[in-house]
Amino acid sequence: MLTNLEHLGLAVHDLKAATELYTKLLGAGPYKTEHVASEAVDTVFFQVGGSKIELLAGTSPDSAITKYLAKKPEGIHHVAFEVDDIRAEMERLKGEGFILLNEEPKRGADNKLVCFVHPKSAGGVLVELCQEVKP
Amino acid sequence: MLTNLEHLGLAVHDLKAATELYTKLLGAGPYKTEHVASEAVDTVFFQVGGSKIELLAGTSPDSAITKYLAKKPEGIHHVAFEVDDIRAEMERLKGEGFILLNEEPKRGADNKLVCFVHPKSAGGVLVELCQEVKP
Repeated sequence: MLTNLEHLGLAVHDLKAATELYTKLLGAGPYKTEHVASEAVDTVFFQVGGSKIELLAGTSPDSAITKYLAKKPEGIHHVAFEVDDIRAEMERLKGEGFILLNEEPKRGADNKLVCFVHPKSAGGVLVELCQEVKP
Repeated sequence: MLTNLEHLGLAVHDLKAATELYTKLLGAGPYKTEHVASEAVDTVFFQVGGSKIELLAGTSPDSAITKYLAKKPEGIHHVAFEVDDIRAEMERLKGEGFILLNEEPKRGADNKLVCFVHPKSAGGVLVELCQEVKP
């Protein structure tokens, strides 16, 4: 099962402007920034209770975020849920008829193994499963 | 400040089908259903760690959810953050330039006082502030 709403990923054009906006909205600043080369994104993370807000800006025309923002306005890009055993959850969801966008867990931001579920199979929501990588 | 990602509100056409889908996705069923007459919506709530998933279906043509789904596909409708003092947060956000959709807190689902922030002022995201009503 999915154990926590780990983070909400927001696609933004201008990371600096969005960081200022969300700092004002949330009433507290970010706790880290991270460049994820494999996804060609720069990220900024805010902690809100037991969940995070992840701002995402593409760093190349091939980035999924750049492509997303070429077609859609800024806003919520995906919702990520924490799982204890990502491979077991991937198997469980496949068995329930969900379409996975990657067949093997891949390395995401924030020291996580991640797998995305196709929004067509999940009520229009791009769902991410994430499992923390133990050091 | 905003203290927790209290819930994610998802607009759906068919509440029964969406409840089945999200039960499969999350790996656990809902803990309550509630009709909110003032908003003309039926809701179904799932607990996921310290946050909730709220499915929303309109019950009249005037419902904000019915109007939303006339223009947009099913998916994430709003994100709600918990606050300790909703009036103080509304004042703080107005001072920061955010546009509030209601000038007074109103009664929402799940025993909450709520206020919505216009997505135009919040990076394309419909943000809800919510404060639990003490019994």
